[in-house]
Amino acid sequence: MTTDAVNVSLIQRNDPLASITAAAKQYNNWGRWGEGDVLGTLNFIDAGKRVEAAALVTTGEAFSLSQPFDTNGPQKGWRRRTNPVHTMTDTGVDAERGNQGFPHGFGGADDVIAMPLQCSTQWDGLGHIFDRGKAWNGRAAGDVVTSEGDLVTGIETAAAKIVTRGVLLDVGRALGPDGGSADGELPDGFAITPEHLERTIELQGPTSAVRRGDIVVIRTGQYSRVRRDGWGDYAGGSAPGLSFSTAEWLHTSEIAGIATDTWGFEVRPNEFEGAFQPLHQIAIPNLGLFLGEMWDPDALAHACAADGRYDFMLTAAPLPITGAVGSPVNPIAVR
Amino acid sequence: MTTDAVNVSLIQRNDPLASITAAAKQYNNWGRWGEGDVLGTLNFIDAGKRVEAAALVTTGEAFSLSQPFDTNGPQKGWRRRTNPVHTMTDTGVDAERGNQGFPHGFGGADDVIAMPLQCSTQWDGLGHIFDRGKAWNGRAAGDVVTSEGDLVTGIETAAAKIVTRGVLLDVGRALGPDGGSADGELPDGFAITPEHLERTIELQGPTSAVRRGDIVVIRTGQYSRVRRDGWGDYAGGSAPGLSFSTAEWLHTSEIAGIATDTWGFEVRPNEFEGAFQPLHQIAIPNLGLFLGEMWDPDALAHACAADGRYDFMLTAAPLPITGAVGSPVNPIAVR
Amino acid sequence: MTTDAVNVSLIQRNDPLASITAAAKQYNNWGRWGEGDVLGTLNFIDAGKRVEAAALVTTGEAFSLSQPFDTNGPQKGWRRRTNPVHTMTDTGVDAERGNQGFPHGFGGADDVIAMPLQCSTQWDGLGHIFDRGKAWNGRAAGDVVTSEGDLVTGIETAAAKIVTRGVLLDVGRALGPDGGSADGELPDGFAITPEHLERTIELQGPTSAVRRGDIVVIRTGQYSRVRRDGWGDYAGGSAPGLSFSTAEWLHTSEIAGIATDTWGFEVRPNEFEGAFQPLHQIAIPNLGLFLGEMWDPDALAHACAADGRYDFMLTAAPLPITGAVGSPVNPIAVR
Amino acid sequence: MTTDAVNVSLIQRNDPLASITAAAKQYNNWGRWGEGDVLGTLNFIDAGKRVEAAALVTTGEAFSLSQPFDTNGPQKGWRRRTNPVHTMTDTGVDAERGNQGFPHGFGGADDVIAMPLQCSTQWDGLGHIFDRGKAWNGRAAGDVVTSEGDLVTGIETAAAKIVTRGVLLDVGRALGPDGGSADGELPDGFAITPEHLERTIELQGPTSAVRRGDIVVIRTGQYSRVRRDGWGDYAGGSAPGLSFSTAEWLHTSEIAGIATDTWGFEVRPNEFEGAFQPLHQIAIPNLGLFLGEMWDPDALAHACAADGRYDFMLTAAPLPITGAVGSPVNPIAVR
Repeated sequence: MTTDAVNVSLIQRNDPLASITAAAKQYNNWGRWGEGDVLGTLNFIDAGKRVEAAALVTTGEAFSLSQPFDTNGPQKGWRRRTNPVHTMTDTGVDAERGNQGFPHGFGGADDVIAMPLQCSTQWDGLGHIFDRGKAWNGRAAGDVVTSEGDLVTGIETAAAKIVTRGVLLDVGRALGPDGGSADGELPDGFAITPEHLERTIELQGPTSAVRRGDIVVIRTGQYSRVRRDGWGDYAGGSAPGLSFSTAEWLHTSEIAGIATDTWGFEVRPNEFEGAFQPLHQIAIPNLGLFLGEMWDPDALAHACAADGRYDFMLTAAPLPITGAVGSPVNPIAVR
Repeated sequence: MTTDAVNVSLIQRNDPLASITAAAKQYNNWGRWGEGDVLGTLNFIDAGKRVEAAALVTTGEAFSLSQPFDTNGPQKGWRRRTNPVHTMTDTGVDAERGNQGFPHGFGGADDVIAMPLQCSTQWDGLGHIFDRGKAWNGRAAGDVVTSEGDLVTGIETAAAKIVTRGVLLDVGRALGPDGGSADGELPDGFAITPEHLERTIELQGPTSAVRRGDIVVIRTGQYSRVRRDGWGDYAGGSAPGLSFSTAEWLHTSEIAGIATDTWGFEVRPNEFEGAFQPLHQIAIPNLGLFLGEMWDPDALAHACAADGRYDFMLTAAPLPITGAVGSPVNPIAVR
Repeated sequence: MTTDAVNVSLIQRNDPLASITAAAKQYNNWGRWGEGDVLGTLNFIDAGKRVEAAALVTTGEAFSLSQPFDTNGPQKGWRRRTNPVHTMTDTGVDAERGNQGFPHGFGGADDVIAMPLQCSTQWDGLGHIFDRGKAWNGRAAGDVVTSEGDLVTGIETAAAKIVTRGVLLDVGRALGPDGGSADGELPDGFAITPEHLERTIELQGPTSAVRRGDIVVIRTGQYSRVRRDGWGDYAGGSAPGLSFSTAEWLHTSEIAGIATDTWGFEVRPNEFEGAFQPLHQIAIPNLGLFLGEMWDPDALAHACAADGRYDFMLTAAPLPITGAVGSPVNPIAVR
Repeated sequence: MTTDAVNVSLIQRNDPLASITAAAKQYNNWGRWGEGDVLGTLNFIDAGKRVEAAALVTTGEAFSLSQPFDTNGPQKGWRRRTNPVHTMTDTGVDAERGNQGFPHGFGGADDVIAMPLQCSTQWDGLGHIFDRGKAWNGRAAGDVVTSEGDLVTGIETAAAKIVTRGVLLDVGRALGPDGGSADGELPDGFAITPEHLERTIELQGPTSAVRRGDIVVIRTGQYSRVRRDGWGDYAGGSAPGLSFSTAEWLHTSEIAGIATDTWGFEVRPNEFEGAFQPLHQIAIPNLGLFLGEMWDPDALAHACAADGRYDFMLTAAPLPITGAVGSPVNPIAVR
C-alpha cells in the first residue's frame, strides 16, 4: 500500500526533526484561507455543515463528552498544570446561620476557580504549539503569543465556530483486546495508524464515514481504564494515541478537528527517540487543526455501539477567554 | 386583568419578606420531580425538545451568546468577584527564543486562569441562592452547599442537560425608546412585567411563542449600551430587568431557563425598599429555575430582527466543575 | 516522675475524645488576656522580650527558616492544598523582543501567585483549628471564621507581634540515630515527649533554656531527609513530631509559639486510634498557641551546633492578609 | 552646587532616553560584585550591619510597615494587577455544623490566596525591570526572566539577606504643608530631590544619617491621605515620589534598598514627556537597588517623631517564591 509505505518512511525514528520537516512541508495549510486567517481547519465548517449536523438529531439523546473539572484529577504539576482548585466565597452553611448580611432571608453561595486551561477536557487553540518558531499560518511565534496571551489566534476567535457533524471512531471497541464485542481498550503505547482508522470506519459502518468539516472523536478506551483503575500517569505517561503516520490522513480528510480520550492525542511514548509530541508540531501550526484532549466519549460510545449510528451533532464551544491558547470545554453530542 | 391585579398586590414595597413569602408559596416546584431531584426546571427538557430544537436549524447560522472573559471586564470586587485573570505559563516569545527545552523545534504556549464563576456569561446553578435557609426542593441550605462546594446540586449534574429550543425576547427592540425600529435599549431601572413579555411576543410574531421546556433569552439592550459607553456600574448597578411580578409567568410558562444581557436578571434597583434580588429568591430555590446572566444576545438579535425568526436551537453547556454553584458558559444558538 | 505518669494516663489510645476533653480542661488559657483577646500566647511577647532578643545578635549571622515556595513542593491536593502556582504576566523575553509597549527601552516583568496559605512554611493562626465548635478564647467557631474569613482573629492582628527570642531544640541531632554527633534525624512516627525536649535542652546547654515568651523551633530532621530522598508523603504522611503528652509542657512553659520542620507539628500517625491532629485541638483553640509548620531549620542548626549557641533573635512576620487563618512566612533568625 | 547642576541637566524633559542613557552610564554597579552576582546592593549588608541594627533596639517597640493584603485594595486591573482574592476552603461555620468529617470534635479552617506579587506591600526584585533589554549586572533580559520565572535573580536568592539598619526619612512631615509640625503630606506630583532628602536628614537630626548598607524608608504622606480619603488613583495615578535627579544620591549613598509609601516609588507624573518610571530603569537594572513600594510607615513615623530617633532594626524578608521578580513582604521595624 502506497500510503503505508510513505508513512513508514515518514517515521525516521532516530531523526524526528527530519520527519517533522518533511511532514510539515507536505501537510501544510498556510495561506489556504488567506494571510489573515485565524481559524485554520475550522474554516471547513460552514452553514451547510451545521444544517447537516442538525439533521442527525433523531432520537434526541444528548451526551456531555466532558470529564469532570475536579481537584481529584490527573494533573501532577508538570508545566505547572495542576488540577482545578474550586473554592467557595459564600456557602449554604453561612446562609443558614444567617451571617451573610442579606435582607429578607436571602442567602447566596458563590465560587471561584483557579485552573490551567489544559487541566481537563479542552481544545488546543492554534497558538498552543509552534514549529521551529512559527505559529499557525507561518507567523512568527513571538508575534502571536506573548505574556499578554495570544494576540492573533486567541481562542475567542473560535467562540461561535465549533458546531458541526461529529463522528465517533471507537478504535478501542473496534480493534481493542475484546475484539470489538465490548468496551474495548487499546493498550498504552498503541499507535493508531491510518489503517486502524479506516478499519474502524469499515467495522462501524456507513454512519462513520469521515467527511470534510467533520470533527472526529477518537475513543481509545484509556479513559475507561483510568476511571476504573485510577489516574496513574494519565497526564503525560504512556498512552494509546495517534501515530505520526496519520499526518497525511489528518490533512487529506479535511476534518475540522479531532479529539481523543487521552491526555495528549498522540501515542506515548512518541514514535521517535528523544521526541516530544511531534504530531502536534504538524497538526497545530502546520495544518491549523483543532485538537481536543481529555474528552470522555464513553457514554456516547455505548449509545453508538447499541444502534450503530456513529455520527451526531457536536457543539463544542470554548469559553471565549481573550488571548487564551486553549479552553476548557463541555462538548455536547446530540443525536 | 386578573394576573395584573395579583401581581401588583404581590409587590408590597415596604415588606419584601411578605411578598417573598407569598410568592414562594404560590410559585413553588418542590417535590414536583421527586425528593431526590437536582435539576429543577431542566426536567422540562426532554428528548422531544431536543428534536424540536434541531428542526429549527434551517439556515445554519451560529451565534455565540457569550461576553468576553477578559481582565477588562465589569467586575469591581464586590463579593470578591473580580474579572478573570488569565496568565501564560509558556509563550511564543519563549518558544521563538529557544528557551523552553523542548526537542526538534517544538514550542508550546500554555495558560492558567483564576476567576469567579460568576465573572462573565454564566449559569446560576440551583445551589446559588437560598430562601430563608432552604435550597432547591426544600433542602436545608447547609446540607447542600458547604465550603466543599455544592454536594447535591453541583452544576456537574446539568452537564448534558441544556440543549433545547431557545426563544429570544428582544424587549429592548420591541418596547425600547426606538419604538422597535432599531436596536432599542430599555433604560436602567425599567421593570419588565409579564405584560411587557407578552407584548414583545405579540410584536415579534409566532416564532416567539414560549412553550414548556424552552429557554428564554431576554435582550434589554443594556449590554449594547455598556459596550458603547463603557462598563460603568454594569456589575451591580441600576439596570433594566425582570419585575418581581413575573414570578407567576416564570412558573406557569414552564420554561427550563431564562437568561438576560444584564448582570443580575432582575430590575435594579429592586422594586422593594431595602431588598436584594428578591426574584432570585423565588426563581432559584422555589422554582428550581436556571438563570443565565451576562449573556450577549446582540448578534443573534440582529439576525432575528432581520428575518423575523426568533426561535433557535440553544446549546448552553456549563463546565462540569464538581460542586460549583454556577458555571461560565458559551451559549451557542444555531438557526 | 509525676509528669510522666500524668501524661501517660493522658493518652487513652482508644478514646481520643476523653483525652482531649481532659487536656482541654487542664491546659486552657481562655480569658487569661481578657474576653476580647485575639493574640493568645503572643501576649507573652513584650517589649522586654524584643530587647532581650536583639541582645542575642553578636556575630550578625542571618538565616532564613523558610522552605521554598515552589510548584515542585510536597502538596498533593489533600483538602485542596496544592503547591503554589507562580506565573508571569510579563517577562524579560518579552522586554527584550520589544513587545511590551513601554517607552525609552523600559522593560518589565510581573508575576502572580495562587496558593493555599498552608502550602509551605507557615503560621497557623488562631482561627485555623476548633475544639468541639469552639475557637480560641471560647468563641463559637461560626462567629469567628465564616466564608468571609476570620472576622475576629485574622492573621493581620499579629502583623507586628512576632519578634522575640527564638530557641532551637535540635531533637534530631540530640537524640537521633547518629547519637548527637552529626545531623541526626528522628524516624517517622517518633513521638517527642516532654522528656525528650528536656533532655535536648540539657544536652545543648544553657543557651537552650526555654523561657516565657520564647518561640521554640523544633528540628526533627525529617526535612533534611525529604530534601535528600524526595518529598514522598511529607504532606500528611508519617512523621516525627510532638507527642500529645507535651500539652502540659506547651502550657506551663508559657512559650509564645512553636514551629517544626514537619508538615503537621504532631507525631504522625497520631497516638490515638482514629484520631486526627489531637494536639492541634488543644494547642490552638485552648492554649491560643501559634504553631509554625514546614519550617527549615537546617542551616541555622548547623551554625548552632558549631558554636553551641542555640538562641537567637527571631522575626517571623506573617503577611497581614485580612481574615486569613494562617500565613506563609519567611522566618528570619539573627544571632 | 555642582550636584544640582548635574542633576538638573540630567533631566532632559523631551528626551527621556538621552537622560536614561547618561544616567545608566554614570550610575551603574555592573560587575561591582562579580559576574555571577544576584544580590546587587544587598551586598552592602554584612554581618556588621546586622549587629549595628540590633544595637538600635532599645525600647523594644515593633512596627509592621505593611499595608493590608485585602480585596478592598487599590488595584484596578492595570497589567492584570488585581487586589488579592482570599477564599476559605473550610470554615468555622462548617466546623460548628459538624459537616467536615473530622473525628473527636476536631474542626478546621483553611484558606487560599490568588494575588499579583505587586498587589500590596512588596519588594521589587532585580528581575522586575530592564533597561534596553538588559537586566541587572548586564545580563540579557531574556536569559534572566522567561515564562518560567526569574531563572537567575529570583527573589528566593534574597531570602535571608534583608536585615539591616533602617532609616526613616519622613519627607512628608519635614517638608510637607504642615511645615514639619504634624503628619505632613507631600502633594501629588511633588518630586523629591536630593536636596529634599538632605534637608529632611538635617531637620530630623543625627539618627537620620544615611550610611552604606542601610535601607531608607521614605514617607511622603500619600498613604495617610488615601487611608483618609479613599484609594482613588493610588495605583498608578499622580503621586509624590523620588525625582529622577536622585539617581546619583541613590548610587553614592551605597544604600541597600529604599522603600516608599506610594505605589511606584518615583514621582508621578514622571518628569519627562511620554516617560514611564524612568528612575526604575536606572535603579533596578543599573544599580541593582532593591525598591520597596506600598509600605506603610505611618505608625513608625509617629514614634520616630515623638522621640526623634529615626533609625531602627529592619527585617523585611521576602517570601522565597522560586523565580519571582518581587515579593509581598511584611517589613518589621524594631527600635
